[in-house]
Amino acid sequence: MSRELAAAAGREQAVTDKVLASFAGTADSRLREVMLSLVRHLHAFARDVRLSEQEWETAIEFLTRAGHITDDRRQEFILLSDVLGLSMLTVAINEPAEPGATEATVFGPFYVDDAPEVPLGGDVARGAVGTPCYVSGQVRSVDGTPIGGALLHVWGADDDGFYDVQYSADHSAGRGWLRVAPDGTYRFWTVLPTPYPIPHDGPVGDLLTAAGRGPMRPAHLHFKVVSPDHRTLITHIFVAGDPYLQDDAVFGVKDSLVVAAEHHRAGPAPDGSHPRESWASMHFDLVLVSDEDR
Amino acid sequence: MSRELAAAAGREQAVTDKVLASFAGTADSRLREVMLSLVRHLHAFARDVRLSEQEWETAIEFLTRAGHITDDRRQEFILLSDVLGLSMLTVAINEPAEPGATEATVFGPFYVDDAPEVPLGGDVARGAVGTPCYVSGQVRSVDGTPIGGALLHVWGADDDGFYDVQYSADHSAGRGWLRVAPDGTYRFWTVLPTPYPIPHDGPVGDLLTAAGRGPMRPAHLHFKVVSPDHRTLITHIFVAGDPYLQDDAVFGVKDSLVVAAEHHRAGPAPDGSHPRESWASMHFDLVLVSDEDR
Repeated sequence: MSRELAAAAGREQAVTDKVLASFAGTADSRLREVMLSLVRHLHAFARDVRLSEQEWETAIEFLTRAGHITDDRRQEFILLSDVLGLSMLTVAINEPAEPGATEATVFGPFYVDDAPEVPLGGDVARGAVGTPCYVSGQVRSVDGTPIGGALLHVWGADDDGFYDVQYSADHSAGRGWLRVAPDGTYRFWTVLPTPYPIPHDGPVGDLLTAAGRGPMRPAHLHFKVVSPDHRTLITHIFVAGDPYLQDDAVFGVKDSLVVAAEHHRAGPAPDGSHPRESWASMHFDLVLVSDEDR
Repeated sequence: MSRELAAAAGREQAVTDKVLASFAGTADSRLREVMLSLVRHLHAFARDVRLSEQEWETAIEFLTRAGHITDDRRQEFILLSDVLGLSMLTVAINEPAEPGATEATVFGPFYVDDAPEVPLGGDVARGAVGTPCYVSGQVRSVDGTPIGGALLHVWGADDDGFYDVQYSADHSAGRGWLRVAPDGTYRFWTVLPTPYPIPHDGPVGDLLTAAGRGPMRPAHLHFKVVSPDHRTLITHIFVAGDPYLQDDAVFGVKDSLVVAAEHHRAGPAPDGSHPRESWASMHFDLVLVSDEDR
């Protein structure tokens, strides 16, 4: 290393050292650990790429745009985390390595807290347009015990690839929660998922375009399964045969979550109803890890 | 490493590899380099600290709050970059190692584009309250050549530690730009800087509090010096003796930028004026790097 380069490296290290020292007094030891690591990695990044002042400005503008497009119903920072793979990495870091348990995937930006209760066997679509789809399965523990009374939150996009909240802030469709039967079984109607692009009219969409990446997600239905004494499961089921399974913009696909959608003509469905149009069905068991197994 | 840990590490690496592959096709080679490095360092950070899902949510909420408090006159992302030392590191990375040149420091969040022109020798304070301060010096090249006609942008806080834009969006005081004399000399009146806290009623302030860090900056006056054929200089002068020189919340202090403020009784000033109250003066030469030296 030339003398000049060594001097420059010394100046840069001096900045990093000062910043690390400033966080050394953080009272919460976990926050201290996180901030020291964040500063080390953030500074290493800036040095590795020799970040220019213009690039720094571009980053500030990017984050500012992301902040301004984010509101109660649009979450650009979650999208950013998703397309950078940080969301799926966080899932991988926290996933219990429990053989037989249903695998987790990204939460995504479209969950809302105040979805309505839907009776077991009822219609989660509530007006969302698409092919009717009957979804059933069982919620159980890894040891096979049915988990009666678990809460099953479901949300999905309509046939045009939009979630309710993308139409307007007070529109609610294609989402709801239900309580599974005492034997752990569940069933509901919704619409068959279709592939759709993540919202790409903001800075995250610009990043994808610049990277030559597509915004598409393969068709999927979101589940959040909550039961006392069990680890909450956040996952999707994906539709087998979807053209984007290998090319999910947010890296969420796991083979074990890909489920066949069976297609049926209008006629009797398993719940005794008689859909007057063709319909689909999917079956998937949701296997939770009990707190004792963790 | 146990078999379980190895499997977990493998799952995590698989996520990182997929994300890196997704950026491999980025057409702009510089953007590709930056994004690949960003993903590597961001993922290494999450793995090193074993980022929990709750911590991930906290980070999303932090960025969302930062986005929502940011507007035309408040820039929380710059403050965040500043308190993490990324701003000063970027300055260090880009600073020309040119002996004799004035050192650079952080830009800060308070520059505005539409500050008024002030005549040479005029008053930049324009109503900002504080001890009158006469600032003078010369703008020149490293080789000693005066840079006549350079544009000198100046901005600073008032005696209460506030910039104009912190009072209201359309208030303008304590800032302006002037053209230096043909011999490179400059002079203007402003108010003597005092120490002040960076805005700390937002998420960045909460972070400082949690880290046991103070929000104070030592007293300083901002300069941006622009001249054709020279590298633009962004710097401050700090006031010697300030109690926060060793403890700047944004790590901006460099010894070479610390300047004595001389205090005077009411009476004749160097420009022939007769201030009716006590006043101060500071003298500082601004030495630019010419494009040929870079």
